[in-house]
Amino acid sequence: MASERTASGEDSLIARYFRPLATDPGAFDLNDDAAALKASGEDIVVTTDAIVEGVHFLPDDPPDTLARKALRVNLSDLAAKGATPAGFVLTLALRTVDEAWLGPFASALGEDATQFGCPLLGGDTVSTPGPLMISITAFGRVPPGKMVHRSGAKPGDLVVVTGTIGDAALGLDVLKGGVVAGALASDRAGRDMLIGRYRVPQPRNALANVIRDYASAAMDVSDGLAGDLAKLCAASGVSAAIDAQSIPLSATARALITRGAVDIASIVSGGDDYEILCVIPEDRFDVFEQAAKASGVPVTVIGGIVAGSSVPRFFGGEGREIPLSRLSYSHF
Amino acid sequence: MASERTASGEDSLIARYFRPLATDPGAFDLNDDAAALKASGEDIVVTTDAIVEGVHFLPDDPPDTLARKALRVNLSDLAAKGATPAGFVLTLALRTVDEAWLGPFASALGEDATQFGCPLLGGDTVSTPGPLMISITAFGRVPPGKMVHRSGAKPGDLVVVTGTIGDAALGLDVLKGGVVAGALASDRAGRDMLIGRYRVPQPRNALANVIRDYASAAMDVSDGLAGDLAKLCAASGVSAAIDAQSIPLSATARALITRGAVDIASIVSGGDDYEILCVIPEDRFDVFEQAAKASGVPVTVIGGIVAGSSVPRFFGGEGREIPLSRLSYSHF
Repeated sequence: MASERTASGEDSLIARYFRPLATDPGAFDLNDDAAALKASGEDIVVTTDAIVEGVHFLPDDPPDTLARKALRVNLSDLAAKGATPAGFVLTLALRTVDEAWLGPFASALGEDATQFGCPLLGGDTVSTPGPLMISITAFGRVPPGKMVHRSGAKPGDLVVVTGTIGDAALGLDVLKGGVVAGALASDRAGRDMLIGRYRVPQPRNALANVIRDYASAAMDVSDGLAGDLAKLCAASGVSAAIDAQSIPLSATARALITRGAVDIASIVSGGDDYEILCVIPEDRFDVFEQAAKASGVPVTVIGGIVAGSSVPRFFGGEGREIPLSRLSYSHF
Repeated sequence: MASERTASGEDSLIARYFRPLATDPGAFDLNDDAAALKASGEDIVVTTDAIVEGVHFLPDDPPDTLARKALRVNLSDLAAKGATPAGFVLTLALRTVDEAWLGPFASALGEDATQFGCPLLGGDTVSTPGPLMISITAFGRVPPGKMVHRSGAKPGDLVVVTGTIGDAALGLDVLKGGVVAGALASDRAGRDMLIGRYRVPQPRNALANVIRDYASAAMDVSDGLAGDLAKLCAASGVSAAIDAQSIPLSATARALITRGAVDIASIVSGGDDYEILCVIPEDRFDVFEQAAKASGVPVTVIGGIVAGSSVPRFFGGEGREIPLSRLSYSHF
């Protein structure tokens, strides 16, 4: 971390917290102006995602979960692109340098960097009079030309998602005291599970090699399944037909639907899932499924790619189409 | 630019402005979640610098100069590390999507991307209720292990800077209506030159290969010559003796000193120079100087590296040491 723009006292404070995370030799112990990333012929996959206080997270979200979320949303992109994590740089815009905040933030970030094999390579710490902002650019490696794209889906391919969909958006509703908070008033465990899904995504990096080997197209689900699938279809020049009853849900989310507290339309337009949406050619599905099983990541077929350029359609029981009033969550 | 977190209308607006900048095939026309940077055995040098409204730039700074400054402060780091620009990613935190601002911003950014051979690879656009923030992570290529470090300076080496020092900080003072603005009240050309140096740095990428081939240590001067030299010396485990009268100054800066409007101490602690500070072994200086001349970048010897661990000392006329009350500018 060059830490330019901070006084030397702050430099040493930041160095104290972040230097232990800079375990890659190319980070030069954060004592230089740049890092050097080794690349022996692979492509370096680059992704960048920023989160802003009051927009992407709540002012009272704990610093340790913020650190994990800021890194994991980028790890999720690397996983969906079939890339192996190589490292990241961090830009931190802070109002003040607060040790009680920086300590748990850096500690959790370091734990995730170790867990996912993605060391800190450098960064910049700037002062802001405004909201806290955490911007991470993460790097991964793939064999030359092997990054998995949004484009590439073909009619007949199967549409697959990992894990369960909708929990994170329900968790945000709990934190905001919305209808879900009311419906789960007596279900502490359910509320905690949903909040955990919102605050700490579980990126599917264990599946990255499988995605790279079998998917014709992939992206992570960050802005809502319906909207992200629409983006993938648009990039591929196709459409999709989704069986809403096949969408994998947690027991808590399913119970909320059964009770009428939320509907499937809001589940598929909620954001922050950080699951992988991928498209698998039908004749490769069996080997894909076996490889996914070996990786420990649950995968579910939710529909198929069809020809056309219309927005993907979601069908409920008895084949009735489910109208979606919005495709995804927008902060603007 | 993944442009996640923006509504589809904003997506297309941003795509319209930024897609023309994504000329590298690895940017995939900004239609994907990540970019792929080719690396045929070179090291990828990574640097990141953010600028915040009200902290690193003034609220009424024009969007075209902001775009140039945001990219050029990163290009300056690449130059000082001996790297050839390869591309960059952009994170833009905006209060609103304003076409009258985005148009000239993107246009100037595109011109600089072309001029410096550093295409846009991707990015993220986020909404913020706070100040505008522009964060850029830039990439360069060097042969394996050849990045130039802050460490490496040895006693006897010569301390060299490019261009002139202090103009940008004087330009900021003009914009803030400080003493320099008063002293130059009747010198419009002088004021404009200084403001230009503050708003649009001239990164020394033309000298990158020369730095890589001859410098024992280097960094760019962004936080003030005195402070940045102190960092280089600390990283190298040495000290330095600087002849203040050798520090290259513009005619305007020199006249301001002669008239007593500013002193050399404030010149060497001002920021935003974006010149290169480098250290050249004495026996290589002649070939370095020739190579620098061929690159068109002016270089000046301002002193020498000495043994020791004290802060570098600056000497004025008759060898008297110049006391520095502060080494560099701090925003915290």
